[in-house]
Amino acid sequence: MTSLRRYIVTKMGEDWIFLVLLGLTMALVSWTMDYASAKSLQVYKWIHVELKGNVPLQYLAWVTYPMILVMFASLFCHLVSPQAIGSGIPELKTILRGVVLKEYLTLKAFIAKVIGLTAGLGSGMPVGKEGPFVHIASICAAVLSRFMSIFSGVYENGNHNQDLLVCACAVGVATCFAAPVGGVLFSIEVTSTYFAVRNYWRGYFAATFSAFIFRVLSVWNKDAVTITALFKTNFRMDFPFDLQELPAFAIIGISCGFLGAFFVYLNRQVVLFMRRPTALTRFLTKHRLIYPGAVTLIISTFTFPPGFGQFMAGELMPRECINSLFDNFTWTKLSGSPLPPGLGRAVAWLHPEVSVFVILLLFFIMKFWMSAVSTTMPIPSGAFMPVFILGAAFGRLVGEIMATLFPNGILFDGIVYRILPGGYAVIGAAALTGAVTHTVSTAVICFELTGQISHILPMMVAVILANMVAQGLQPSLYDSIIQVKKLPYLPELALGHISKYNIFVEDIMVRKVKFLSSQSTYRELNHLLDMTTLKTIPLTHTLFSLLGLSHAYVTSIGKLVGVVALKELQKAIEGSTRSGVRLRPPLASFRDASRKSKKHQSSTPSSPTWDTELWVEGVTRAGGGRWCGTYLTMTSREKLRHPG
Amino acid sequence: MTSLRRYIVTKMGEDWIFLVLLGLTMALVSWTMDYASAKSLQVYKWIHVELKGNVPLQYLAWVTYPMILVMFASLFCHLVSPQAIGSGIPELKTILRGVVLKEYLTLKAFIAKVIGLTAGLGSGMPVGKEGPFVHIASICAAVLSRFMSIFSGVYENGNHNQDLLVCACAVGVATCFAAPVGGVLFSIEVTSTYFAVRNYWRGYFAATFSAFIFRVLSVWNKDAVTITALFKTNFRMDFPFDLQELPAFAIIGISCGFLGAFFVYLNRQVVLFMRRPTALTRFLTKHRLIYPGAVTLIISTFTFPPGFGQFMAGELMPRECINSLFDNFTWTKLSGSPLPPGLGRAVAWLHPEVSVFVILLLFFIMKFWMSAVSTTMPIPSGAFMPVFILGAAFGRLVGEIMATLFPNGILFDGIVYRILPGGYAVIGAAALTGAVTHTVSTAVICFELTGQISHILPMMVAVILANMVAQGLQPSLYDSIIQVKKLPYLPELALGHISKYNIFVEDIMVRKVKFLSSQSTYRELNHLLDMTTLKTIPLTHTLFSLLGLSHAYVTSIGKLVGVVALKELQKAIEGSTRSGVRLRPPLASFRDASRKSKKHQSSTPSSPTWDTELWVEGVTRAGGGRWCGTYLTMTSREKLRHPG
Repeated sequence: MTSLRRYIVTKMGEDWIFLVLLGLTMALVSWTMDYASAKSLQVYKWIHVELKGNVPLQYLAWVTYPMILVMFASLFCHLVSPQAIGSGIPELKTILRGVVLKEYLTLKAFIAKVIGLTAGLGSGMPVGKEGPFVHIASICAAVLSRFMSIFSGVYENGNHNQDLLVCACAVGVATCFAAPVGGVLFSIEVTSTYFAVRNYWRGYFAATFSAFIFRVLSVWNKDAVTITALFKTNFRMDFPFDLQELPAFAIIGISCGFLGAFFVYLNRQVVLFMRRPTALTRFLTKHRLIYPGAVTLIISTFTFPPGFGQFMAGELMPRECINSLFDNFTWTKLSGSPLPPGLGRAVAWLHPEVSVFVILLLFFIMKFWMSAVSTTMPIPSGAFMPVFILGAAFGRLVGEIMATLFPNGILFDGIVYRILPGGYAVIGAAALTGAVTHTVSTAVICFELTGQISHILPMMVAVILANMVAQGLQPSLYDSIIQVKKLPYLPELALGHISKYNIFVEDIMVRKVKFLSSQSTYRELNHLLDMTTLKTIPLTHTLFSLLGLSHAYVTSIGKLVGVVALKELQKAIEGSTRSGVRLRPPLASFRDASRKSKKHQSSTPSSPTWDTELWVEGVTRAGGGRWCGTYLTMTSREKLRHPG
Repeated sequence: MTSLRRYIVTKMGEDWIFLVLLGLTMALVSWTMDYASAKSLQVYKWIHVELKGNVPLQYLAWVTYPMILVMFASLFCHLVSPQAIGSGIPELKTILRGVVLKEYLTLKAFIAKVIGLTAGLGSGMPVGKEGPFVHIASICAAVLSRFMSIFSGVYENGNHNQDLLVCACAVGVATCFAAPVGGVLFSIEVTSTYFAVRNYWRGYFAATFSAFIFRVLSVWNKDAVTITALFKTNFRMDFPFDLQELPAFAIIGISCGFLGAFFVYLNRQVVLFMRRPTALTRFLTKHRLIYPGAVTLIISTFTFPPGFGQFMAGELMPRECINSLFDNFTWTKLSGSPLPPGLGRAVAWLHPEVSVFVILLLFFIMKFWMSAVSTTMPIPSGAFMPVFILGAAFGRLVGEIMATLFPNGILFDGIVYRILPGGYAVIGAAALTGAVTHTVSTAVICFELTGQISHILPMMVAVILANMVAQGLQPSLYDSIIQVKKLPYLPELALGHISKYNIFVEDIMVRKVKFLSSQSTYRELNHLLDMTTLKTIPLTHTLFSLLGLSHAYVTSIGKLVGVVALKELQKAIEGSTRSGVRLRPPLASFRDASRKSKKHQSSTPSSPTWDTELWVEGVTRAGGGRWCGTYLTMTSREKLRHPG
């Protein structure tokens, strides 16, 4: 009887049950949120249509509706859990490097994030769902693992929980876009430095299951007849593009690289401006609702359809934008002629007096700053979807230009092939999101979102080019936010560079330390662990971020002489670079640090011996009062002497 | 002038030039190989058709042609480089864990592999291109990096070269299938335990570039009008499948799990049988060409189209099999009626007197053992493509059964949807290859191969189910080969298990060791490095497989008492398990080892102090006589004492 119960408890504690529960919860949350925000947008549009004829009243409704929702979201988050504000990916990235961010993975944050995000999405403002959804999934995983620890002690293991957080990221992206493969890849690229392949199947399992349930709910609700892609495209498959179009795709990629870097720069400047201690910002900090309210007011004023909005397809809600930008028509060929019936909402792009190019360009420029600004509002909001739309608009613009330059299509091998501006839009969307997030898996997300893989090669080319340009100019949006928020996160040190840059631990270590000897008792150790709140850090080596490390001990031939923790390391880096927010290139700061420390020794770096060591210790505590850990020691090369 | 030259040399030494060169070379090799083997198959079929009417002569030609090619491949590899025999992925997996396999990455092996593989593919035997291609790409990378070391010292760095080998794997898969995303993912899953995300963009860049060039060559050669998928499908996109078909997809997944495990088992049994010291095997070892010749003779006798081959579509060459299995027709509905014009080579599946089910079943059964046996021939050969075809046939069989069970399609929401047996074939192919290789990225390879992503969710479900079943039953094909070949590779120790299993280093370490002190000179160190050929090993910790580690030193409070290398560790594991070939569960052996060593101490594992340490040292040597390295020390918990 006891063994049977134990058997059930053990089975219940297995990972796959956890992953199924996580997937199920997230699919339900995602679908409910989509449903609620879509209904909200329906109401918004219905009011707008009902009030037709009375422009002042229509304007009032157009600006008030989103203002109420955004201010409600802001107030709700402020009262329930301020941790719910923003994207969530930067914080998760920090947590996955072993730093504990308090109050970040609580049920309160979950509620605030879900309610706030639904309100934000329902306002029609350019805020995204993806980043917050990664956060929501992580909280779900953390809460679930606390619940599952009833059944198995493995859920009290810190490393194991970190593994599950990586899966949660994948589930978040997967349920947001119904993109399991892209979800797994994007979460790896965004959160990890080293990825354990053993997490791979977990991620796929949970992501597939959740995406599946998410789409089944749509079928059940009769939104779709069967499981299909979220933004399904219908490009011709026999000849999706011609090789001669490749230069245009490359141009999209390179331009998106520059635009993406500029987006990150602009977003950071807005945040930094708001942080500067001026009378205005002091006023705004005091009256928290004024900033989001004002931003919403300005943005919705610009998009008001009977006003300026008519020149920038202002009436289109985010999803309508994507669907219309990805359509099969060539808009420049439509103007003047009677409109085809399948056009749908894309009519908004066609103005009787203004050219499509102007509309697309205005849309791009206006939405660019709107997206950069609106993601700084104190509500749960991501930047992925707004950037995706921007990229689609840019790609469409290039596509329409190409269609005008080659009105009859491109001649190849005796056959003339028509240009597909929708294909350009898909490529632009993948390239710009890739540039902003510094990932290449946005291409995979695009395939899954559109359900078509025919543009795979030009898309990969564009995304890689965009990444090359953007990575050289700016940090990724998430790294930028990490810097601006001053989260305790250290830049990555590539493995290949360790041999080039000598960091001398002597200069930054704390010399008086509490220490453990082999005679220490468990109680002493426990006491010490409770006292220290420091968490560590990849130091001469990113490798250690894989483990949940606590401190770096510095010893000299076995004797303990100092300890290095996150704080000292950061101070050292800041001291040597003297630039508060620049992350890139991360190595520069280490180079400076090593240069500085070279004063302390005179030999050349070509002849090492080892006599000072850096000990890196990682302690984990496992269930039931038992104590176990791994202990790592790492030696730094120092005081290099020449042979002979 | 000097600085200009240095600038050029530095630029030339950058990674992206290396990756472009690698991609370009591999695309050319892949395309040339495809071209040559396709021509060879054309000649084969031409002879067959020309001899029509004279069945004995036709039979003679049908069996002689592949026999000559296979025996030539075998002889060529034997004379030039025996390392070229087989797949290549198992060996590469071993190399990537830090073990040096001599003669494995040489130009000789490259030539033998390319020539041998082309002959093997040109024979029409069920041998694959993927595994060998991964090997070819790795050799390419190794040779290129030796060439590039003229420009930059970074190419003499062992860690960096390992990074490039991971990229080479991706390039190998990408150029084989024109599948850049799948290539990167498959190579990660198959070769790595921990994956450095910094290699990710390198892999994508090289894989995309090579796949792109590979497909451009086809366009240039007028094989294709534009860049498209290799085995393009044309399934309807509006309604690819109905939710009610999901149980059938799940059945395919689970069945493929069992079939995949059986394939691995069968393949290993054939190899083990050939290794058993009997009179027959002694004879075959002496006369090396008899075994491949006999296997080819038997297989081609069975496939002879006027003979038994007519009941198993024997006339179809591998690529024709895939193209026809993935087509849009429902074969069970075609029998009797006049055949549609678009059917093409699929006619071979339709026998005037025998049902399609029987043909498909016979094809599956016969090709199953043929594939398992033919991949044991001493020629360069992979199993991916043969297994892919098997899976496609199995999926098609289920699909045709479904189409017969529901002849009018499936009713949903008032509309009747027809069953698509081709879609089942794609899912079966992904599931069976996933089961045999223990990967889920085969699904991504399938999308890229077919150019359609509409079946993504059922395919992911089937692949995950297949993996769950297969991983519980057998090791992956590559791990199985590693065991059978007795390659120096250690099973993975999951991070979460370290705390559970104590391995006592004392019992297995070598006590008399050459050692270095802080007084050692560079010359002494160099001498020592030249003398030792041992390479190491993830020991209390897989983490270290990330670095190119050399030895594990065991010290007691700073004093060096012993060294553990791969050899001792393997001996210890073998001694405690006493089973030569069982790899799974890998932890069992460690558990045994720890149980055994518990005799040596009496305390409980709940109270650790540290007084014996395991030092793990990794030494890399960088360019120009300079010497640099990382030095890691790791402490094992031992002689555990209780608090208080």
